[in-house]
Amino acid sequence: MKLLVINPNISDDVSALIRTEALRAAAPGTEITVRTARSGVEYIETRLESLLAAPAVSQIIAEDAGDADAVMVAAFGDPGMPALKELVDVPVVGITEAALATASLLGARFSIVAISGRITAWYRECVGRNGLESRLASIRSLRTPLRGIGSVQQDFRADLVRLANEVVDSDGADVVILAGAPLAGLAREVAAEIPVPVVDGISAGVAQAEVLVRLAPGTHRGGSFAAPPAKANAGLSPELAGLLARQLPIRK
Amino acid sequence: MKLLVINPNISDDVSALIRTEALRAAAPGTEITVRTARSGVEYIETRLESLLAAPAVSQIIAEDAGDADAVMVAAFGDPGMPALKELVDVPVVGITEAALATASLLGARFSIVAISGRITAWYRECVGRNGLESRLASIRSLRTPLRGIGSVQQDFRADLVRLANEVVDSDGADVVILAGAPLAGLAREVAAEIPVPVVDGISAGVAQAEVLVRLAPGTHRGGSFAAPPAKANAGLSPELAGLLARQLPIRK
Amino acid sequence: MKLLVINPNISDDVSALIRTEALRAAAPGTEITVRTARSGVEYIETRLESLLAAPAVSQIIAEDAGDADAVMVAAFGDPGMPALKELVDVPVVGITEAALATASLLGARFSIVAISGRITAWYRECVGRNGLESRLASIRSLRTPLRGIGSVQQDFRADLVRLANEVVDSDGADVVILAGAPLAGLAREVAAEIPVPVVDGISAGVAQAEVLVRLAPGTHRGGSFAAPPAKANAGLSPELAGLLARQLPIRK
Amino acid sequence: MKLLVINPNISDDVSALIRTEALRAAAPGTEITVRTARSGVEYIETRLESLLAAPAVSQIIAEDAGDADAVMVAAFGDPGMPALKELVDVPVVGITEAALATASLLGARFSIVAISGRITAWYRECVGRNGLESRLASIRSLRTPLRGIGSVQQDFRADLVRLANEVVDSDGADVVILAGAPLAGLAREVAAEIPVPVVDGISAGVAQAEVLVRLAPGTHRGGSFAAPPAKANAGLSPELAGLLARQLPIRK
Amino acid sequence: MKLLVINPNISDDVSALIRTEALRAAAPGTEITVRTARSGVEYIETRLESLLAAPAVSQIIAEDAGDADAVMVAAFGDPGMPALKELVDVPVVGITEAALATASLLGARFSIVAISGRITAWYRECVGRNGLESRLASIRSLRTPLRGIGSVQQDFRADLVRLANEVVDSDGADVVILAGAPLAGLAREVAAEIPVPVVDGISAGVAQAEVLVRLAPGTHRGGSFAAPPAKANAGLSPELAGLLARQLPIRK
Amino acid sequence: MKLLVINPNISDDVSALIRTEALRAAAPGTEITVRTARSGVEYIETRLESLLAAPAVSQIIAEDAGDADAVMVAAFGDPGMPALKELVDVPVVGITEAALATASLLGARFSIVAISGRITAWYRECVGRNGLESRLASIRSLRTPLRGIGSVQQDFRADLVRLANEVVDSDGADVVILAGAPLAGLAREVAAEIPVPVVDGISAGVAQAEVLVRLAPGTHRGGSFAAPPAKANAGLSPELAGLLARQLPIRK
Repeated sequence: MKLLVINPNISDDVSALIRTEALRAAAPGTEITVRTARSGVEYIETRLESLLAAPAVSQIIAEDAGDADAVMVAAFGDPGMPALKELVDVPVVGITEAALATASLLGARFSIVAISGRITAWYRECVGRNGLESRLASIRSLRTPLRGIGSVQQDFRADLVRLANEVVDSDGADVVILAGAPLAGLAREVAAEIPVPVVDGISAGVAQAEVLVRLAPGTHRGGSFAAPPAKANAGLSPELAGLLARQLPIRK
Repeated sequence: MKLLVINPNISDDVSALIRTEALRAAAPGTEITVRTARSGVEYIETRLESLLAAPAVSQIIAEDAGDADAVMVAAFGDPGMPALKELVDVPVVGITEAALATASLLGARFSIVAISGRITAWYRECVGRNGLESRLASIRSLRTPLRGIGSVQQDFRADLVRLANEVVDSDGADVVILAGAPLAGLAREVAAEIPVPVVDGISAGVAQAEVLVRLAPGTHRGGSFAAPPAKANAGLSPELAGLLARQLPIRK
Repeated sequence: MKLLVINPNISDDVSALIRTEALRAAAPGTEITVRTARSGVEYIETRLESLLAAPAVSQIIAEDAGDADAVMVAAFGDPGMPALKELVDVPVVGITEAALATASLLGARFSIVAISGRITAWYRECVGRNGLESRLASIRSLRTPLRGIGSVQQDFRADLVRLANEVVDSDGADVVILAGAPLAGLAREVAAEIPVPVVDGISAGVAQAEVLVRLAPGTHRGGSFAAPPAKANAGLSPELAGLLARQLPIRK
Repeated sequence: MKLLVINPNISDDVSALIRTEALRAAAPGTEITVRTARSGVEYIETRLESLLAAPAVSQIIAEDAGDADAVMVAAFGDPGMPALKELVDVPVVGITEAALATASLLGARFSIVAISGRITAWYRECVGRNGLESRLASIRSLRTPLRGIGSVQQDFRADLVRLANEVVDSDGADVVILAGAPLAGLAREVAAEIPVPVVDGISAGVAQAEVLVRLAPGTHRGGSFAAPPAKANAGLSPELAGLLARQLPIRK
Repeated sequence: MKLLVINPNISDDVSALIRTEALRAAAPGTEITVRTARSGVEYIETRLESLLAAPAVSQIIAEDAGDADAVMVAAFGDPGMPALKELVDVPVVGITEAALATASLLGARFSIVAISGRITAWYRECVGRNGLESRLASIRSLRTPLRGIGSVQQDFRADLVRLANEVVDSDGADVVILAGAPLAGLAREVAAEIPVPVVDGISAGVAQAEVLVRLAPGTHRGGSFAAPPAKANAGLSPELAGLLARQLPIRK
Repeated sequence: MKLLVINPNISDDVSALIRTEALRAAAPGTEITVRTARSGVEYIETRLESLLAAPAVSQIIAEDAGDADAVMVAAFGDPGMPALKELVDVPVVGITEAALATASLLGARFSIVAISGRITAWYRECVGRNGLESRLASIRSLRTPLRGIGSVQQDFRADLVRLANEVVDSDGADVVILAGAPLAGLAREVAAEIPVPVVDGISAGVAQAEVLVRLAPGTHRGGSFAAPPAKANAGLSPELAGLLARQLPIRK
């Protein structure tokens, strides 16, 4: 299968981290293409930055999803989701929803460890949008300004492990989610230092996207995720306008 | 006060309806400017169409909010909200959240009457994002294809009144919200035919925006709605990039 | 418009604070009449004290609402609400519900700063009755006995500002509600010392009552807030009995 | 033990029904005193009527609870509760909360069968105030005007049994609550015609009050149900003022 | 009435504590039979240990409930509940659900004081299964390893009283539940040291079981707690197979 | 990887259906072993039948999980879950939780189509235990008695497709879950007749188990899913007692 991975942050450093972890996680036969947003911000921490990133993500889908079997949106907080599931007939998966689905199978309650205090409100709302507040034990985060987004996991490894242990010991977490594409791959390295399962969004996203392709549950030809009704539009890129012109979604 | 009203739909017909009702609702001294989205779709019914509208809305705010005291986003479902509240230091109000706040003062449970079946999933999620599911009695909608977006209230007046009575009689609604900018102003005309208070999003939005300006509760210099932290960005319009370059939000 | 403001506490000191802030908040053309409960307690802190205040509030409405366009119940916790909305055909607004509606437009989560520990349980239940638990970040309160109810804001200004900053920094509040009529007007004075919008119940109540009058959404002739069915009663004041004798609520 | 039973409705007919069922339900050694509200309405169906009944109920408690071991408030919807629990040091139990507690032990989800459509909104809010919405399968009610409040169970026996069967067959109820003091005793008569356990508020209230007396779990000398702090009051009956003058609640 | 009390723990020490408290709590005329699980663990602290205990509990019911009027499952966390309610036509009550129902009548929010940290997750899920999360103020627990399960209340009396006071002072509890059969009877001894009502599961369970027998609300001949449909089974004890062979549950 | 699949029903017919679909769903390299419960009932429809099945499931895990990389419990409703996750150090996945996790990635709200009315209460509680009530659009079921459990999908294909279309058209489902091992494999056959994605528990369970093995998130050495503390036990099979004797869970 072909998986289109989109980094909604404009940072190539983060795209490299995503690519490395995605390749490690992919099943044999999965081809990974990583694309980086051409507009937006260096690292999405807020609702607004997520909104600013969404056009670039939708444009990449419109340009490149034509021969993909699935799309993965690789920023925690899932910019543009679930709206983007209406855009194409193949599965579109956010790394947060994939991490939450995976964590939900590993224990009763999970906590999220994040890299900035500001980011936690947006993450909390994302968990809420997924209807999983009752399973969220806590969100804890670094409180120190970052030196650079590409080196967070090196710079703060010990702090992140400490936070992960705190959510288990003090907040009742059964599972820890290390949140944010800049932490891609860290879960593998620190799992032995954390007494419960540790979930990484990138690898969870790749694996869940593969599941959705392999199970082939069918497309949305009805319901609230079908392609929107045909109507006049303006100012959209030719690629997006082309997707909206689909009258009848067709099974891939 | 100056109120910038943004129609996230590209339809000038709907902008005209919005303008008329906004002027009727405005207090003496409120200046209304209505702007229409330059990109997006004719009438937003889905999550994806909302996502496609958001860039145009944020661009209008970036261009024109400089001397506004408040901004109103005039499509039910509140495209781009609450993210847009992070963008400027003046209040940004969606007509759904304004209608919900207003309805919440008029009774215990409210219902929404909408103009298409497809639109109801998006509206339901918007109520959920506002944390008010427990006060939503029901959503009922027209099921017939529309002849045109500008004439919905003429074409379907009787059906809409019937739906409004059904939600009172069968669903336990204490308040009815006539949802969607295309119904702007209809509430005034049909209130006598509906046995409970009827709320219109446009007039509620104008009135609530005026309240927020007059109360002057202060701006977000901290918390999760402050301007995002300074960081690199790319591909944004000069106006949006300019707003993001604010380091310290300043009280208007 | 004429707004009848009722202080459910028997304290004239608090009525004076309420009057001052209500006048500051009122739009041009709003006439404010403030009435003080003739029975009840000095300052309502508990469910029982709220229950004891309700008869005096309903009696004042029955006596004086005849030519009012709206009624405001000016104690946080909203004694007698939402029951009192069934009593007359004009809007009856509590300052808590008005503060919550206003705060809900200013951010995602709000906290309440209160003047006694005992009062917090009652406030929490009031937020719950409004269905807004998921948006309540926290309630924090003074823990020191008050010298007098009329001088709370002078005596504890610094403590209240400190609590307001704590709910932003530690509890994730996007908006602070300074709760209780004895704090009427304090929000204006301390807004600059608190990094998020600050809402005052009295001014929010006045402004929201004005909105409901101006929007004229219609009265409850059906649904669960219509006047109760005609039936035998006993022991009520002539004024209350008179209101209950309305068979068909008539639009003002 | 001595149980003070208060009918918040002014109807002596209903008091007689309550007395008969309370005596049938009482354990040996329980002395039942039934008092009827001197003010209020014939039959409480709304929030407002509940508010109007509360002063009479609190006055009876203040007058007569002095030698009672427990108090039962015998109108479904629990007028004045939970505030009245703050008033005296003995348990005060509403028949709704008692029915809900009892039903919760008999199955997963319960439904309420009520005697008027108007009453259902108030009942639903009462279930909500008890935090049990997730266990409420449905509320169904008679829709025909009543001939008289004292003869409801005779006049509508067949309809009530039909409604009880409908909630089992269509709404997934595991337990049926026949709601309202006018139905006191009906559960015993119709149990054989309903395929799940049937709970009556009056007998549940008596039994639960007995449980609370026998278990003697202790009084509220702290927490949010302790007697309110001493403070000035006005316009209260001597008996109520006397109760409020208690400085330190004393164990009975 | 005859009450079959089952200790799902294999510990005879705990059975003795249960018997003593059950006898103290029982009404005149209640005959108590206590049976101890023959398989399972010494003291149930986890979901798995609860699962391992359930077969022994169901077997005792199948063997001994034939002439019982009610069954009480005497381990906090209610192993096997609510499934066991489907097994026989008499009421089956868990001590947790009985404690929760009792506590719910004594205040708005309750806390649970438990004897080990590990046990709290299981208790929290049990409260959730009863739909009462919104009334749970907190769970606090001992953190020290126990010397022996039969002497917990002697060994940790002071710590347990301290925890009970903490939940009132810091967590807003109106009622304290001392959880776990090993604490049977402690509530009576420490009530004077805790400023709110204190509920003991064993005595609450006995009292509530008596209520259900005396009210005789009827059996489950329909709904989701009726005896399961007849079908092939295998490997069950003769007693359990015999119970399943009931085609039509018969009123006792 | 080696996947131990356990059919908690005693029916070999259903085990055959499970095996066929599991093999179709498995990735290359996954070895499937299917075991059938030796005790319990032909087809689990109720909480009690689930409880009766759990000992057989735990016994099979204790006997056979020694060289498995993951365990799948193949009855909808997830008998014994989540308790069984505490039993071994490899992932234990129920087909309901796997179907819910998978469905949650395909749309906002899902419905369950079931094969008997009685079974729906148990399924609803299972969704609730997973914290996903807010995403459950509805449960609809066959109402006709089954001819045989092995032929349900042949006998009722048209009815099941009709129910699946009803939940989309009337209940707002974005995804349909065909529930119950007897429907294993049906989703593949009917996907073209249903306008939204259709999820099958068996294939979802296999795929999710593979994900958990491949991601290797680590085991529970702490938190509420670690192996229970060492303590006395009795009456357990040697295999179960052996598992409980593990003092320190060891990473596989």
